[in-house]
Amino acid sequence: MDAENEQQNGTPAAADATGTRGAVSRRAVIGWAGAGVALGAAAVGSVAAATRQDDAVPVAAPVGAEVPFYGEHQAGISTPVQDRLHFAAFDVSEKATRESLVKLLKEWTKAAAAMTGGREVGTGAVPGSPEAPPDDTGEALGLPASRLTLTIGFGPSLFEKDGVDRFGLQAKRPEGLIDLPNFKGDKLDPTRSGGDLCVQACADDPQVAVHAIRNLARIGMGTVNIRWSQLGFGKTSSTTPDEQTPRNLMGFKDGTHNIAGTDGAKLADHVWAAPGDGPEWMTGGSYLVARRIRMHIETWDRASLKDQEDTFGRTKGEGAPYGKGKEHDAPDLAAMPATSHVALAHPDANSGLMILRRGFSFTDGTDGLGRLDAGLFFLAYQRDTRKAFVPLQQKLAASDKLNEYIQHVGSAHFACPAGVRKPGEWWGQALFG
Amino acid sequence: MDAENEQQNGTPAAADATGTRGAVSRRAVIGWAGAGVALGAAAVGSVAAATRQDDAVPVAAPVGAEVPFYGEHQAGISTPVQDRLHFAAFDVSEKATRESLVKLLKEWTKAAAAMTGGREVGTGAVPGSPEAPPDDTGEALGLPASRLTLTIGFGPSLFEKDGVDRFGLQAKRPEGLIDLPNFKGDKLDPTRSGGDLCVQACADDPQVAVHAIRNLARIGMGTVNIRWSQLGFGKTSSTTPDEQTPRNLMGFKDGTHNIAGTDGAKLADHVWAAPGDGPEWMTGGSYLVARRIRMHIETWDRASLKDQEDTFGRTKGEGAPYGKGKEHDAPDLAAMPATSHVALAHPDANSGLMILRRGFSFTDGTDGLGRLDAGLFFLAYQRDTRKAFVPLQQKLAASDKLNEYIQHVGSAHFACPAGVRKPGEWWGQALFG
Repeated sequence: MDAENEQQNGTPAAADATGTRGAVSRRAVIGWAGAGVALGAAAVGSVAAATRQDDAVPVAAPVGAEVPFYGEHQAGISTPVQDRLHFAAFDVSEKATRESLVKLLKEWTKAAAAMTGGREVGTGAVPGSPEAPPDDTGEALGLPASRLTLTIGFGPSLFEKDGVDRFGLQAKRPEGLIDLPNFKGDKLDPTRSGGDLCVQACADDPQVAVHAIRNLARIGMGTVNIRWSQLGFGKTSSTTPDEQTPRNLMGFKDGTHNIAGTDGAKLADHVWAAPGDGPEWMTGGSYLVARRIRMHIETWDRASLKDQEDTFGRTKGEGAPYGKGKEHDAPDLAAMPATSHVALAHPDANSGLMILRRGFSFTDGTDGLGRLDAGLFFLAYQRDTRKAFVPLQQKLAASDKLNEYIQHVGSAHFACPAGVRKPGEWWGQALFG
Repeated sequence: MDAENEQQNGTPAAADATGTRGAVSRRAVIGWAGAGVALGAAAVGSVAAATRQDDAVPVAAPVGAEVPFYGEHQAGISTPVQDRLHFAAFDVSEKATRESLVKLLKEWTKAAAAMTGGREVGTGAVPGSPEAPPDDTGEALGLPASRLTLTIGFGPSLFEKDGVDRFGLQAKRPEGLIDLPNFKGDKLDPTRSGGDLCVQACADDPQVAVHAIRNLARIGMGTVNIRWSQLGFGKTSSTTPDEQTPRNLMGFKDGTHNIAGTDGAKLADHVWAAPGDGPEWMTGGSYLVARRIRMHIETWDRASLKDQEDTFGRTKGEGAPYGKGKEHDAPDLAAMPATSHVALAHPDANSGLMILRRGFSFTDGTDGLGRLDAGLFFLAYQRDTRKAFVPLQQKLAASDKLNEYIQHVGSAHFACPAGVRKPGEWWGQALFG
């Protein structure tokens, strides 16, 4: 637990901002004692101690609810998929510099380590003065870590935007971090696409995920702005084979043969960038494609069961491949309609190509025509997007029967670096350092 | 469990629509066996039996996860507040008649009884023909009831719209179902306000709540259209005093002294319409006010802790009233700033006025200015809105310090009738019957 001190020592700027630093559990309460109580640093109510940085005694996060932040790979990729998502894409603001961006990434790393550990951002206690805003917005006080993971990615525009190398990163852009091609049928909304940076927050409690994105946005004020964000209310993919396969909003299981988070060989082959794949700073990282896929729910709901099952190549109830009895039976691709989703997307029909899917269902109210604005927020991690998502989506865009019922309306591509291995390191250090 | 049969016998129209009727648990799987298997009613794969209505053998819903649908009052009001919300306001379509509306309400009632019981809409098994759409959209298959409640309400416009009595209900409009007055500071979006009908779906699993609204919308196709809907990701009020008080997105506890769902005396005084209060059909019902309250998150997050605590009249960490140590200590209203939310809203400052709050936090992505579109979807139930929400909100709109940080952007008012007491009865029977 010296970790916290080391890490904090790595970000003196943040420590300076509030005067005091300590690490307390989110189960501890913060509070300014308010009227009727003498004002001052001693009036801390039920907070046990708002210690200085060098006195910090971090409290352990709740057992079983914490996903380790530090590691070879970023958490939130092979991690068992949590129940809820808040995803945000950020743009770096015009006045920001390479230096302010590095400062932010250090602060973000520190905040991410705290929040994924079930602790508050900053001191977690009173600020230096009641006249200052609290370090943490507070809505997750009292909530456990809830398996929160925060995963960062860097978009193509961070390396070069309109031909300008804003942050001296152009030479470090991975060849694999392509501008995604246009796919047939795409109807992309630019305000829901792209982004210089992204953070994927996954947690079992949406309040914890929303809290995390909001506090990162707040820390980033003046340096980055949220470009778009997406809440996902239910996972549609699992990386845990023993778990019941979740259903998408079409009522189908569509993640049966996902890469397991425990399958080191498949992860190495299909998910983690290896030495020689691209720039060294991406080794151990992964490429993330995010697609907002709107479902034409009302049309789908009027389709016959046979048509629905022909579309996926699976039975609706059990999720069994056509002509088979059980979900996990090996599919006979020749037995299903040639344009069914499984027949086109299965690894056996794509020279073994696999992506790690981590998508979530969304519903964002109703559109102007009284139709549910709902669908799948598709998230997929891969070792090389050019050899995975791109050829797969080109094929699906051309032929998938599912296209009658869906439309891709948002798109983004990010390079997610390797993990922060230990306290003191920071998100993007290998890229910027 | 004869209930299911009785209920179904009460809605012959729905039974006619699909040909077969049976009640199966949502844990049973549906499925059309698909290609390679002979087509026909016998090819039911792993479905045990798709029985006719008169043979139905309903399966018990999962223990502990089901809130009874039938009762003196509608569930979803005094029921312990579930974790998630999907709320929908519907307008009756132009071509609908009183008869088609009654038919819909009967079908909805039947579907609501099934879904709150953890069962699928309709047979829950294969349709009469694979050429027909499934009765149920399927995305909640395998999920437990998750304490789902569905609560219906009737808006002022159902009784009279632009001076027209579309459904012969004008004379039955409760005097208490007023058109809400304009409040100072309101900036209401008409596309997020009003509605002829509403359904509040609350559940511990958002997939279950979304599934319920979607299937009701689907059943209503041609008769009603969704006017607007709202997803709530985290409750901000509790009706269970033993439970930890949840926090809103400002990081504060703001439901400490809510009416307990077990407090029969307070419910009778403040929540349930009594004989003589209005039309007989509303006896045992309650009036629901829904307000979409946008929070100016970024401004709030820059406010000092003292300013934040002055705004609520509570400490942020513990949630204690000003000058007190614990959340549940009786507040000394004179000790807190006169414009603080607690000082203005507390029952002691309002002749004992109380409302039952059932609000949820929402975040709907980002607005065009990069700010989180987030806040509180306020839901309050009361015996008489004219004596409860209206005077309270007039006072708050005039003076509440919180107004610096919030804006009411959506508004609706509904009369929620008494409960459906037994199978065979239906939502709105006392109003239409």
